[in-house]
Amino acid sequence: MARQPSKGLADVVAAATALSDIDGRIGRLSYRGYDINQLAGTATFEEIAYLLQRGGPPTADELASYHAEIIAGRRLGTLVTEDLARIAHHQEPMEALRTLVSLASADDPDKDSNGADANLRKAARLTAQQPVLVAAYEAARNGREPPAPDPRLGLAGNFLFQVTGRRPSERSAEILDICLVLHADHTMNASTFAARVCAATLSDMHSAVVAALGTLKGPLHGGANEQVMRSMEEIAKNAQDDPVEAAGTEVAARLGRGEKIMGFGHRVYKVEDPRATHLRVLAAELAETAGDDTYYRMSRRIEETVLAVKGLYPNVDFFAATVYHYLGIPTDLFTPVFSVSRMSGWTAHVIEQHADNRLIRPDSEYIGEAGLTWIPLAAR
Amino acid sequence: MARQPSKGLADVVAAATALSDIDGRIGRLSYRGYDINQLAGTATFEEIAYLLQRGGPPTADELASYHAEIIAGRRLGTLVTEDLARIAHHQEPMEALRTLVSLASADDPDKDSNGADANLRKAARLTAQQPVLVAAYEAARNGREPPAPDPRLGLAGNFLFQVTGRRPSERSAEILDICLVLHADHTMNASTFAARVCAATLSDMHSAVVAALGTLKGPLHGGANEQVMRSMEEIAKNAQDDPVEAAGTEVAARLGRGEKIMGFGHRVYKVEDPRATHLRVLAAELAETAGDDTYYRMSRRIEETVLAVKGLYPNVDFFAATVYHYLGIPTDLFTPVFSVSRMSGWTAHVIEQHADNRLIRPDSEYIGEAGLTWIPLAAR
Repeated sequence: MARQPSKGLADVVAAATALSDIDGRIGRLSYRGYDINQLAGTATFEEIAYLLQRGGPPTADELASYHAEIIAGRRLGTLVTEDLARIAHHQEPMEALRTLVSLASADDPDKDSNGADANLRKAARLTAQQPVLVAAYEAARNGREPPAPDPRLGLAGNFLFQVTGRRPSERSAEILDICLVLHADHTMNASTFAARVCAATLSDMHSAVVAALGTLKGPLHGGANEQVMRSMEEIAKNAQDDPVEAAGTEVAARLGRGEKIMGFGHRVYKVEDPRATHLRVLAAELAETAGDDTYYRMSRRIEETVLAVKGLYPNVDFFAATVYHYLGIPTDLFTPVFSVSRMSGWTAHVIEQHADNRLIRPDSEYIGEAGLTWIPLAAR
Repeated sequence: MARQPSKGLADVVAAATALSDIDGRIGRLSYRGYDINQLAGTATFEEIAYLLQRGGPPTADELASYHAEIIAGRRLGTLVTEDLARIAHHQEPMEALRTLVSLASADDPDKDSNGADANLRKAARLTAQQPVLVAAYEAARNGREPPAPDPRLGLAGNFLFQVTGRRPSERSAEILDICLVLHADHTMNASTFAARVCAATLSDMHSAVVAALGTLKGPLHGGANEQVMRSMEEIAKNAQDDPVEAAGTEVAARLGRGEKIMGFGHRVYKVEDPRATHLRVLAAELAETAGDDTYYRMSRRIEETVLAVKGLYPNVDFFAATVYHYLGIPTDLFTPVFSVSRMSGWTAHVIEQHADNRLIRPDSEYIGEAGLTWIPLAAR
């Protein structure tokens, strides 16, 4: 007998994982047993990608060797480089990334293997490649070349350098690094789950992360950070007077009409998402550095309004928007930034799925008519 | 509290659907209430695609109008046509289709909408486009152009014409049409489920079917029909004597070593998959027409052996392999043929998901360590 339906599989355990854990009652997220509050600002994104993909924190030697894989993995294949400009001019960022990562499998030397070693190498390559693809896309659609990566910068710093075309301050690079650490994995979120459903047919890692990219694109998932920024940009543009006041008034009005405010609430957290706590602090710092705290103050006012009216806390997408904005990242690349980080988690989940696989094939509840008689076309 | 895990979500209801229903105890599959035993040989694939996507059997006028959409939808966009040859030379069939469908969103006039009407139009276009992509891929890698479609042929006949480059007999076209009808939908199979997980973030139909294509690629799902044929080809090549005897001996030996035989068993059916029943008959007919029934007799011997030793019945992939072989379809295009049919079901599921959406976001069971202390790199 099939079990009773739970719409959207809320609270249904779909898989076992040793990668991340959420305690939604106290707002704790941990990666392989390490609370992210310990990791943010202490560990680099590369250490976290290694931790997730390879099982534990790297030693200095292991990290150096992983860095070498990341540097080698930055190199884009010919199929990607030849098609990049055309794709950048005809596809939106997440649409283009879905295509580009699908193209990239052609040049992966391990493409035909799901073996454990091949999967580890592919995971490093995909993690290395994702920021380069986003930056190359941004450069191509603006008719420029991204600057050559700087060996003194890590993955986050080089990404910020290449995507904006401007050398980032040390602190900006650090802040983006923290953002990438905070977004790396998050249990059975929709894109990760899509990747595991795909991988569980013993399809390959590229197929799984392409499925994940298409899933992250949705506004109920990774697409939310862009929506948060668009909404604030629109309020600021239309504000007669103080945009902070306008933000409070507008959001209260939307809530009064029963509309959903993007960036609030989460199926798993009953208290504040710990990632939001970190991102709020970073947004405040960047606003001060920028000398223009309008969007930060708008964010705070929106946050207060939603909490007062609906009792909902901001989620990871809400303050990520303000942070990325202050870092100079174009609004339509916010979801791609999310993908730069989450690629580390998706690939780790594919490794985990393939290591102890079972096809993910649920049941459905049939709610249509039954026992109908088909009348051939000529008689209809 | 999260519910107890069920590995692979077996018997867990993940969604409600009015599209298809399986009664695994008696081996019945129905589409919108019509038993496929009524449909196979009676309804065309276009009628079934319409039934799934638009809710009921079309009248003659509705079918004519849907046909017009299919004919218009065959036209490939410029991004696809410009990149096709390069992709065909560098990517395997399912890898290439994943890329090509991802590219194709760029030229879809409804790409920015998930609205009900836009989704209906996109579903027809994607259904029309999939056979053309497979045929164009096959032609491109062989350095030829596919023949222009013949207006007197339906989708199946034109696909067979374009993919082989040879005008099919009337009966061959009918048989492929029946195959497409039999593969159109199958409740919450892995690729369909991946499409729904993707669509449930309110991502778009192209993203969802790209996720589905990557999932179908896996050898535990759509990839199985190709594996069935490869296995028979290998046995036939290595047979010292009668390949039929060799098939029985080899499969018995594999079963004795505890190996899995592709094309047998199914999570949902406890008796024979009704699609296999139809495909067996079609394989026999094609073998007789071909004047060489070796692969058909090998199939039967393998079937008898697996049933005797393991008590497992053939599934849809087992006799589909033999049928596609006799229809002159290259072995590495068997899974793409599956995708030509299943595109109708995937798109119908996206329509259904978007019409009454809830994010599909399950829980996971954490099985790793907890409460660890992160030691900074310098101290490790």
